[in-house]
Amino acid sequence: MVVKVYGPAFASPKRVLACLMEKEIEFEVVPVDLLKGEHKDPEFLKLQPLGTVPVTQDGDYVLYESRAIMRYYSEKYKSQGTGLLGETIEERGQVENWLEVEAHNFNPPVMNLTLHVMFSSKLGFPRDENLIKESEEKLGKVLDIYEERLSKTKYLAGDFFSLADLSHLPFTQYLVGPIGKEYMISSRKHVSAWWNDISSRPSWQKVLLLYPPPF
Amino acid sequence: MVVKVYGPAFASPKRVLACLMEKEIEFEVVPVDLLKGEHKDPEFLKLQPLGTVPVTQDGDYVLYESRAIMRYYSEKYKSQGTGLLGETIEERGQVENWLEVEAHNFNPPVMNLTLHVMFSSKLGFPRDENLIKESEEKLGKVLDIYEERLSKTKYLAGDFFSLADLSHLPFTQYLVGPIGKEYMISSRKHVSAWWNDISSRPSWQKVLLLYPPPF
Repeated sequence: MVVKVYGPAFASPKRVLACLMEKEIEFEVVPVDLLKGEHKDPEFLKLQPLGTVPVTQDGDYVLYESRAIMRYYSEKYKSQGTGLLGETIEERGQVENWLEVEAHNFNPPVMNLTLHVMFSSKLGFPRDENLIKESEEKLGKVLDIYEERLSKTKYLAGDFFSLADLSHLPFTQYLVGPIGKEYMISSRKHVSAWWNDISSRPSWQKVLLLYPPPF
Repeated sequence: MVVKVYGPAFASPKRVLACLMEKEIEFEVVPVDLLKGEHKDPEFLKLQPLGTVPVTQDGDYVLYESRAIMRYYSEKYKSQGTGLLGETIEERGQVENWLEVEAHNFNPPVMNLTLHVMFSSKLGFPRDENLIKESEEKLGKVLDIYEERLSKTKYLAGDFFSLADLSHLPFTQYLVGPIGKEYMISSRKHVSAWWNDISSRPSWQKVLLLYPPPF
């Protein structure tokens, strides 16, 4: 069964694309243009009532939320492609730990930077300079913690690449590119080495060729 | 090994307590008073550099983030106590789906209500009436989607109780109690039946006896 991925040209769906590529899972994309509000179209809301992307559809089996989708396909195709959940229950626990840190600590400030630096004029809301400053500070503190962590282990969850690292790709790509805050990565030795490593993976390079920034 | 749970008297750690009780796992608590800022103490930051609770410690094995902790212990003690992850990979996928919906759609508005209705005077920041109104509206839309979902399945991930339901307990308890928005649950037939079901579980009743609201 080919997995359908809705809304591939934006950051969160790109997590799913990179994951499916790492797992060598065949997929096809269904464009949903957030800038035109297509995620709020009645037809789309029948599939995903919350009106967010990505959504995957595999026969009748539908999933929302990028991190849930990545966990499911990484588990279902455990022995195919790259292992993304660790080998043991303890390693998986660390993957979950750092995937949740990404979702609840890294993602909120970088999402604010994305919205206010990259998309405020396109989406027609005012660019909030105070929020930009505050978000940059918050993100810096999180990256300091990553720097400390990555001085001890090669990747966030341990000495193995996992969903916890992969989940950072789309928004960090915005950060070093269209957001214009490349210094936040390059000024931190271990974070910088980690970013060079994970962003040069063939899966991510393929995603970037398909959907280059600023999207 | 007895699991240490740091910071048990607040909402997110209570998720972990309810989960450990469902899994019949022995634990001991280590109080961390957020209202006194103890989560920012240097000693605590050595354990958890992000300065958030809950944290669990099991020998040398440390985890942050309530939903990561719940996943780890539910997996590690799969055959002990209540199964909280579903039986199949597809069921687990739905558990992940709705656990992520809780984290990214239900939690942000109910967290705003918690902070601005329950804790603004205690923590010394101004109560933002616009944010309260906006959060109530957003939460209402999410609960409408739950109402539709729960008209088809008994629980969020399917016809089985799981982490996806359990994760809603602490903040929904605030919502119907100290936040004073009980109508948001009781006015929705299926959400109301679901809430009565999950909140009457012995695990949750025990958590409430140990740490009654408003905390």
